[in-house]
Amino acid sequence: MDGEDGNNFISKNRLEALVDAVFAFAMTLLVIGLSVPAIPKADAAAELPPYLASMVPQFLSFLIAFFVLASFWVGHHRHFHYLRAVDRPVLWINLLILIFVVLVPFTTDLSGDYSHVQLAVVFFHANMLFLGLLFLVHWQYIIRHPLLEGIMPAEFQEREGTAAGLVMILAACTGIAISFLTPSGSFYAYMFVPVAARVLSFIRHRCTKPG
Amino acid sequence: MDGEDGNNFISKNRLEALVDAVFAFAMTLLVIGLSVPAIPKADAAAELPPYLASMVPQFLSFLIAFFVLASFWVGHHRHFHYLRAVDRPVLWINLLILIFVVLVPFTTDLSGDYSHVQLAVVFFHANMLFLGLLFLVHWQYIIRHPLLEGIMPAEFQEREGTAAGLVMILAACTGIAISFLTPSGSFYAYMFVPVAARVLSFIRHRCTKPG
Amino acid sequence: MDGEDGNNFISKNRLEALVDAVFAFAMTLLVIGLSVPAIPKADAAAELPPYLASMVPQFLSFLIAFFVLASFWVGHHRHFHYLRAVDRPVLWINLLILIFVVLVPFTTDLSGDYSHVQLAVVFFHANMLFLGLLFLVHWQYIIRHPLLEGIMPAEFQEREGTAAGLVMILAACTGIAISFLTPSGSFYAYMFVPVAARVLSFIRHRCTKPG
Amino acid sequence: MDGEDGNNFISKNRLEALVDAVFAFAMTLLVIGLSVPAIPKADAAAELPPYLASMVPQFLSFLIAFFVLASFWVGHHRHFHYLRAVDRPVLWINLLILIFVVLVPFTTDLSGDYSHVQLAVVFFHANMLFLGLLFLVHWQYIIRHPLLEGIMPAEFQEREGTAAGLVMILAACTGIAISFLTPSGSFYAYMFVPVAARVLSFIRHRCTKPG
Repeated sequence: MDGEDGNNFISKNRLEALVDAVFAFAMTLLVIGLSVPAIPKADAAAELPPYLASMVPQFLSFLIAFFVLASFWVGHHRHFHYLRAVDRPVLWINLLILIFVVLVPFTTDLSGDYSHVQLAVVFFHANMLFLGLLFLVHWQYIIRHPLLEGIMPAEFQEREGTAAGLVMILAACTGIAISFLTPSGSFYAYMFVPVAARVLSFIRHRCTKPG
Repeated sequence: MDGEDGNNFISKNRLEALVDAVFAFAMTLLVIGLSVPAIPKADAAAELPPYLASMVPQFLSFLIAFFVLASFWVGHHRHFHYLRAVDRPVLWINLLILIFVVLVPFTTDLSGDYSHVQLAVVFFHANMLFLGLLFLVHWQYIIRHPLLEGIMPAEFQEREGTAAGLVMILAACTGIAISFLTPSGSFYAYMFVPVAARVLSFIRHRCTKPG
Repeated sequence: MDGEDGNNFISKNRLEALVDAVFAFAMTLLVIGLSVPAIPKADAAAELPPYLASMVPQFLSFLIAFFVLASFWVGHHRHFHYLRAVDRPVLWINLLILIFVVLVPFTTDLSGDYSHVQLAVVFFHANMLFLGLLFLVHWQYIIRHPLLEGIMPAEFQEREGTAAGLVMILAACTGIAISFLTPSGSFYAYMFVPVAARVLSFIRHRCTKPG
Repeated sequence: MDGEDGNNFISKNRLEALVDAVFAFAMTLLVIGLSVPAIPKADAAAELPPYLASMVPQFLSFLIAFFVLASFWVGHHRHFHYLRAVDRPVLWINLLILIFVVLVPFTTDLSGDYSHVQLAVVFFHANMLFLGLLFLVHWQYIIRHPLLEGIMPAEFQEREGTAAGLVMILAACTGIAISFLTPSGSFYAYMFVPVAARVLSFIRHRCTKPG
């Protein structure tokens, strides 16, 4: 297929390198959102401590955004581990994913600065929702095409990859739902992602070990 | 040739790694242009939604710049796929290309913030025009030198690589022309790039399959 | 172990590439903290020299942060040199380390701008303290698991890796202690890190050469 | 030597990857210095053109800094091409070089914004001077140690590497000298670097071809 449409000049390794660099850079750029205003030297001793205390929502959204990006990076490696070659749709799904990775520092900064404004918070959740949806599309495309035949051990990983995408979509939708009640509290929706990942891992072990 | 001018210490892989890193950073730095001013906490709920609505031209130019950079990155890989070695002119054409890649976050930010000012918009189109011209020069140099003999399957790809450069130059020139009528509308000139790429791909398939 | 928990899709090389990229970006982003305010053109000749002179604490914290990050990067390579494979705990310890690497440009900027405010300086030392602790945990995990058997020449390196982590923790704690007396003087606590490293290296040579 | 001091865990490839990433990132961060102030929408059409015209010194210092960094990157590859292994002094000379690479976006921004203030311009030239000196030290260390025996074809390249470092030092010193007469004119000192490189290359060809 990728020979046919003339796109076989994109190697899996090069695309992976671009994706890794953009992920690493976006994770590092999150720190740009953490900034302290210029305070006159004489007032700094008095004004800095309350200002840093008021930055707690910003630190929280920084931490959540970092772990969500890290989880997507781990998930991306899981996808590419099973990939034999890159064709044109995989290339463009990846570039679409990168757009929403690049937007994370912006939506994190916005929702950290204005964690009490629902619209700002919804921008963050929508960003995560699109990332989750695109990862699901990515995985579904990969497992439906002969890009990975003969490498993936069993069909169970197919379900697991799908479940990982659904967990993130569910977390983002939960975040949007909670934001109608309390914008700043809606970030806690992502805390059940590692719990869900552990449950999925536990189910897998129960399914694969006895069978 | 590259042995003769003593420049054979630059490997194709290292130059490709520098180009990839600069593309990845420039694509990620586009997000820096998307920023929201500091709004007092009490006014944020009222002032943030209209401000975000007014950012639509900024989001549009962010998206266009991202896809144009992604297209150039894909095009660069196509060029380097046919390249056997890097000589001094290829090295310096690449460094010239990188200057205009690095400028993209600046011209995107400028034209996104002041999408109603023709000069700001022309900076963006001129950036794209120079990128297109340099890609054309890059491709013409590569196919005119023995850097790729024995790898490229047929001479048709030569015409295709030239056409891809010309499409981008045409889009940038169209953008400059439209900017005299409506600066903010001139960004739509790039929307025909993927259409043109599809037409080119269709023509190629018609030409190669029967023959 | 890493086959069992289904995490063997993360290769040592890919994680090392992410860590290297984040270190490189964080080291380069330190420069963002060095910025000069917009001074009207007519006043610049008079106002710029005293302003640059007042930036000395910022340059000092930039230099210290750069060297501390460089030392951690060297230390990370030492750890990974002995590593055969990456399992899930190593993956997540590394991602935790990266959070505190990413925070370094923020805490450096904060402590450079407000080097006379104890809280700002303590943020920097706490950042270094957590980095030191996580490196100690990283090393202790590696040497306690069969990830490196058969590669590490002698058990002495175990003690050396532990000592390197302890030196950084000690420096950070000394910095916090000094900050109660003089916040801006507390940065000098890190100057004994290279001295301690040299002493450790000297002891190692005395121990390994005669034995 | 590098086995003896226990530093053989740093591979040449990994250090080269860090150096490349920091160079690529610093070259891309130069664009951060090019920024336009927030102008009210109604005034932008009138105020933006003269502002962009006043940015000409900033564009000039951007271009010069980009080409100087690119030249140093090319020079670094030339050095590492002849290197067999990395020992502790090479590691730390490289990290010192990276500090001054990271500072380039700051000194470029400073000297571009205040191109009429001698001190600002001297910061830029001093940055280039230290880079040139460190490259000279780097090269002298490499050719004086058995790190490259058996790879370098003739002893002439030794003189050429030294000459390349001296050219940059000479350009920076000339820049500092000119800055006493005209700060903004002192940037032209770097324009003779490519001329000098061409002269050096011409001399080399004359020396190697007849011999």
